Amino acid sequence: MISRAEATQRVLMAKQEKDLSWLQIAEALGRDPVWATAALLGQMKMAPEEAEAAAAALGLYPEVAVALQTDPLKGSLDPTVPVDPLIYRFYEMVQVYGTTLKALIHEMFGDGIMSAIDFEMHIERKADPKGDRVVVTLDGKFLPYRKW
Amino acid sequence: MISRAEATQRVLMAKQEKDLSWLQIAEALGRDPVWATAALLGQMKMAPEEAEAAAAALGLYPEVAVALQTDPLKGSLDPTVPVDPLIYRFYEMVQVYGTTLKALIHEMFGDGIMSAIDFEMHIERKADPKGDRVVVTLDGKFLPYRKW
Amino acid sequence: MISRAEATQRVLMAKQEKDLSWLQIAEALGRDPVWATAALLGQMKMAPEEAEAAAAALGLYPEVAVALQTDPLKGSLDPTVPVDPLIYRFYEMVQVYGTTLKALIHEMFGDGIMSAIDFEMHIERKADPKGDRVVVTLDGKFLPYRKW
Amino acid sequence: MISRAEATQRVLMAKQEKDLSWLQIAEALGRDPVWATAALLGQMKMAPEEAEAAAAALGLYPEVAVALQTDPLKGSLDPTVPVDPLIYRFYEMVQVYGTTLKALIHEMFGDGIMSAIDFEMHIERKADPKGDRVVVTLDGKFLPYRKW
Amino acid sequence: MISRAEATQRVLMAKQEKDLSWLQIAEALGRDPVWATAALLGQMKMAPEEAEAAAAALGLYPEVAVALQTDPLKGSLDPTVPVDPLIYRFYEMVQVYGTTLKALIHEMFGDGIMSAIDFEMHIERKADPKGDRVVVTLDGKFLPYRKW
Amino acid sequence: MISRAEATQRVLMAKQEKDLSWLQIAEALGRDPVWATAALLGQMKMAPEEAEAAAAALGLYPEVAVALQTDPLKGSLDPTVPVDPLIYRFYEMVQVYGTTLKALIHEMFGDGIMSAIDFEMHIERKADPKGDRVVVTLDGKFLPYRKW
Amino acid sequence: MISRAEATQRVLMAKQEKDLSWLQIAEALGRDPVWATAALLGQMKMAPEEAEAAAAALGLYPEVAVALQTDPLKGSLDPTVPVDPLIYRFYEMVQVYGTTLKALIHEMFGDGIMSAIDFEMHIERKADPKGDRVVVTLDGKFLPYRKW
Amino acid sequence: MISRAEATQRVLMAKQEKDLSWLQIAEALGRDPVWATAALLGQMKMAPEEAEAAAAALGLYPEVAVALQTDPLKGSLDPTVPVDPLIYRFYEMVQVYGTTLKALIHEMFGDGIMSAIDFEMHIERKADPKGDRVVVTLDGKFLPYRKW
Amino acid sequence: MISRAEATQRVLMAKQEKDLSWLQIAEALGRDPVWATAALLGQMKMAPEEAEAAAAALGLYPEVAVALQTDPLKGSLDPTVPVDPLIYRFYEMVQVYGTTLKALIHEMFGDGIMSAIDFEMHIERKADPKGDRVVVTLDGKFLPYRKW
Amino acid sequence: MISRAEATQRVLMAKQEKDLSWLQIAEALGRDPVWATAALLGQMKMAPEEAEAAAAALGLYPEVAVALQTDPLKGSLDPTVPVDPLIYRFYEMVQVYGTTLKALIHEMFGDGIMSAIDFEMHIERKADPKGDRVVVTLDGKFLPYRKW
Repeated sequence: MISRAEATQRVLMAKQEKDLSWLQIAEALGRDPVWATAALLGQMKMAPEEAEAAAAALGLYPEVAVALQTDPLKGSLDPTVPVDPLIYRFYEMVQVYGTTLKALIHEMFGDGIMSAIDFEMHIERKADPKGDRVVVTLDGKFLPYRKW
Repeated sequence: MISRAEATQRVLMAKQEKDLSWLQIAEALGRDPVWATAALLGQMKMAPEEAEAAAAALGLYPEVAVALQTDPLKGSLDPTVPVDPLIYRFYEMVQVYGTTLKALIHEMFGDGIMSAIDFEMHIERKADPKGDRVVVTLDGKFLPYRKW
Repeated sequence: MISRAEATQRVLMAKQEKDLSWLQIAEALGRDPVWATAALLGQMKMAPEEAEAAAAALGLYPEVAVALQTDPLKGSLDPTVPVDPLIYRFYEMVQVYGTTLKALIHEMFGDGIMSAIDFEMHIERKADPKGDRVVVTLDGKFLPYRKW
Repeated sequence: MISRAEATQRVLMAKQEKDLSWLQIAEALGRDPVWATAALLGQMKMAPEEAEAAAAALGLYPEVAVALQTDPLKGSLDPTVPVDPLIYRFYEMVQVYGTTLKALIHEMFGDGIMSAIDFEMHIERKADPKGDRVVVTLDGKFLPYRKW
Repeated sequence: MISRAEATQRVLMAKQEKDLSWLQIAEALGRDPVWATAALLGQMKMAPEEAEAAAAALGLYPEVAVALQTDPLKGSLDPTVPVDPLIYRFYEMVQVYGTTLKALIHEMFGDGIMSAIDFEMHIERKADPKGDRVVVTLDGKFLPYRKW
Repeated sequence: MISRAEATQRVLMAKQEKDLSWLQIAEALGRDPVWATAALLGQMKMAPEEAEAAAAALGLYPEVAVALQTDPLKGSLDPTVPVDPLIYRFYEMVQVYGTTLKALIHEMFGDGIMSAIDFEMHIERKADPKGDRVVVTLDGKFLPYRKW
Repeated sequence: MISRAEATQRVLMAKQEKDLSWLQIAEALGRDPVWATAALLGQMKMAPEEAEAAAAALGLYPEVAVALQTDPLKGSLDPTVPVDPLIYRFYEMVQVYGTTLKALIHEMFGDGIMSAIDFEMHIERKADPKGDRVVVTLDGKFLPYRKW
Repeated sequence: MISRAEATQRVLMAKQEKDLSWLQIAEALGRDPVWATAALLGQMKMAPEEAEAAAAALGLYPEVAVALQTDPLKGSLDPTVPVDPLIYRFYEMVQVYGTTLKALIHEMFGDGIMSAIDFEMHIERKADPKGDRVVVTLDGKFLPYRKW
Repeated sequence: MISRAEATQRVLMAKQEKDLSWLQIAEALGRDPVWATAALLGQMKMAPEEAEAAAAALGLYPEVAVALQTDPLKGSLDPTVPVDPLIYRFYEMVQVYGTTLKALIHEMFGDGIMSAIDFEMHIERKADPKGDRVVVTLDGKFLPYRKW
Repeated sequence: MISRAEATQRVLMAKQEKDLSWLQIAEALGRDPVWATAALLGQMKMAPEEAEAAAAALGLYPEVAVALQTDPLKGSLDPTVPVDPLIYRFYEMVQVYGTTLKALIHEMFGDGIMSAIDFEMHIERKADPKGDRVVVTLDGKFLPYRKW
């Protein structure tokens, strides 16, 4: 058996060598690119047929397919506050708009949270003459606080 | 002059006493509720007419309108890792999907980042028979790394 | 308007002066003592009739009842790792049994989490000749990870 | 001699290869699954017969059985605040309900703590038409503060 | 009602004004100086007669006696690692001798801990021609880990 | 030459294989078990004859004896706040009784500290019908602050 | 494939062995020394022809050129606050002049930031009879906050 | 006497009420706007005539002029890693270009540092058709490491 | 009674108003300026006659003299790593020369430490044509580690 | 090429095997023992002849001499607050006397710092009948803050 971290390393190497994009691999899996990339980067558990399709597309040994079906210890960032500028901007959005999200979700839905588990994320490119834009859609079920 | 933090406190009190929603105040300002709430919670600088409209809608003294036009020291969360469950879920999304965002934005756009400055956020309620969903849209300009 | 923290202070003072127990106040509210105590300590949002019943039982001004209906910024512990010995033991349980909980919940339910939102907690005293025992029951909905 | 961390790795590998569940291994040991899993994940010290039964069930070398009898340096989580969403929810419960636990245990038992040493934990699945629930029972002796 | 922290402040002031030593106050209470000082510094809960004796000895109002009977949020040190040199030395002892304590207590008693709850501490002065010595005795019940 | 950390590992392995207790090794050295264990766990510097006696008792190569005579970089705990429950309890004692120790040592000795260098520690088992007790004695020279 | 960190190591070794300066390598790349050094130290993504020119100048295998074209996880400093004195001084400038930069950039440009992405840095030596000076020029696009 | 922090508050209030810019105040002082702003924000010690000119320009009491002549405890940022987006970008530059600065300054000057004390900073606006740019010039004496 | 922190504030104010230097106050006390300044800044406990001389020199009420005789909670720096540039340089010396101090003191004295309690510090100005120098002398008793 | 850390390791091993003291090696280099030890422990850059003399004295390969001439990433302590008791005492001196150093250096020299770059340190043994003393002299150029 290889570890989940080792599986991520082999996926990255094979992707580079086979010169595949994440979108091509996602298509081979029959999944959205965000979910597929998250799973291949060690954040999601794959079903057997998904893991095998991924291993086949990337030309990897069956042991990688086995590892992709294990429950990962989630969390992809080493330091508490991410340092990489692209990732940091998302942390900054939480810093700047965190209380706004809280105020408006409570106003629109009542006391509860937006799930990060029953959750989907999509990334799109929106053409714009002043410079194209990244549009990230976060879509999570509202979960009301239970009372008892 | 009152501080920006004091202005936020007065806004919250007046909103509670006048029983206004964030959406009603945003309408009075002529701005999207996300931007308006962020500004009233001390994260954005208002133009004079916006600050005055906000003060009028909330029945606040002119000194609050003055404070809303100052440059805030941004960042709405006290601890490095937010503790409130609603806000924490957004930090968790960055933890779980941070490397995925990096991989896919680089694949779709090249080396650069998604701006958190030339940036908009929208929050919507999507009806769903299994439980309504929160849909948050993040829309930021792609900024390529300069070479020299 | 008074803040949620101020409301918690007044509740604690009134409880001491009226010599009421948390169980008596919970009964007045018609809620489980755990939920009622958490709400009075600033972690849950009360419905108007609950807040009024609490204020009546404790002999507090209506402004406290108003504050108890606001959305609290949750999180009751100042330092990241709690120092008080009673509270620390629960942190220690997470340290010692965290990976066990992960292994067994994944084995019994698949990939997902135990909700801390659609969640109840109960505390009971179990008589034992070697020394009575505290029994805390955590009861949360299993939420499977969504795939897309 | 191998280290306790190495022993945990070998247990995980053998479990995966033999396709055993934690419940099956616990049965082979004659122990509750929670205790058995905690011990195999490096948090508890096994008696010789337990360690040997575990090694036999998993087909491991005697050196693993020796390691399972050593006193582990307990604590299964790397960062101070756990990042994995399943484990984090338990930390969140301590954050949100920590002062509630303190208030009610003091009210029901007096000044003291709930032991995390003379302590048992059980995990069950409770069927529910709205979605099955995880029920975790924490059962610890009350220890009163000594006076002198 | 006054808070526990406020009670500690008043105790310190009265002690200074009345020029009493901790030992004199402890005697008035009928308790060991260590326990009495810890209780007066906000770490232990007093029985009514102890709190009243303390207030009488120090000439304090009844509200202080009430506060001394509340359950304190224990933990007397602000920073995680104490800075005051006298207190830091005890932290250093844990750093230097922590694994030694673990090795020898496990060897002498088996898997378990030394209780900090069913615990007494004594401080004595030992005359020594090379310079008098502080002798601190820590005396705690051994608690074996429960198996189930 | 091997490092001090490597020497500690070899000592632990040899102790396990030879099935020796810390007390037996301490006797071979002619030192108190606390000092001997601390030295073997990398916290104290041994004299040549002590290091050789230790290596002989454990059947280790001379290079280990050499390493045991080096000045160790002291401090046996990885995280700032120890996580292992046995060791944590000593940190908790400092948290709960730190200001008490400061108040009483100053009262009994004046301004200064209890040395952690000119210091001895002893661990004993005290039989008790309600459960045996661990008694740890800390014995350090009082050092008065110098004035100039 | 080799990792980006491994590529940085090989660049440093080859530079030392071939006794090349950063300026000579930058010239071979046709880029400013700051950008070229940052890219070779793992902070920037190179175009294929740049990576190949760098590998050629340093006499490195093609796999290094491949690695230099990957998207690096940026951030060159291990600890949150840098310890090396040369690097720390830049952190100190942010500490001492951070609010000054904020006050003056807001006054000169309005609400927004100075980009660290659409950004250039230059380093020069300025002769001075009292001791030569380092002149670092930071040149970044002003990005105004978007309103919506 | 008022504290330095209090003086900063009064300066900010007077500046807002008198509607003065930092550049106008700097001119009144006869100093560069960067130095003057840093001094008024509590980071530099003013000479008597500078402090008096500042107080006169802002219409402040003499006690503020006295405070501006005290040695400030420098460091303008509360958290270790700044959160405000404008200030954070400068921290990010140190993260991304820190090792580059080290490599090139060592290559150009030898072993030593760029002083942050014998140091000047200038901020300019550079017009650019694609969007104006902020140009910050850091100018510090090179200090070679002393050998002895 | 006033607190030690309050006493420090009053000392600073009186010193500024009376325009006294630390050296003048130290002379009035009959103590070295380093010790006297440390005591007045809340780090040392004064004898009654010293406290009274200080209060007299500064024209302060007797309550300040009382406070100066209490045992201070030592430690003059708020953050773990000091930010003020003058103080930080001393932290940097520990970072850069810490292992050197350890290596040489062990070589010259054996296993032990340099006391920070039986300790004196002196600060002098040494004229130098290239710029005057600060000479700080640290003078502490060597304390050998006790063996038992 | 070997890394600077690897060079430090080889120096330590050779020193142990050849049974050389730091003072003997310093003499071979023609440098003060403090500077020589700091350089050999990876904190200073050596000139070619110094590095070669060191390698010769220790009997090391030329590659170590090469490494000793590289610019080290300075900072010898892993954790932010050092744990080793000998090194910690120097951190404690900064904690206890930091504001005293600031007050007196400012009084004696004006606004500026004591350089840690244009800096020498010396360590001496002072005989004393009550126990020998360690005398550490810190000698750094005063650097006044520049105004502009």
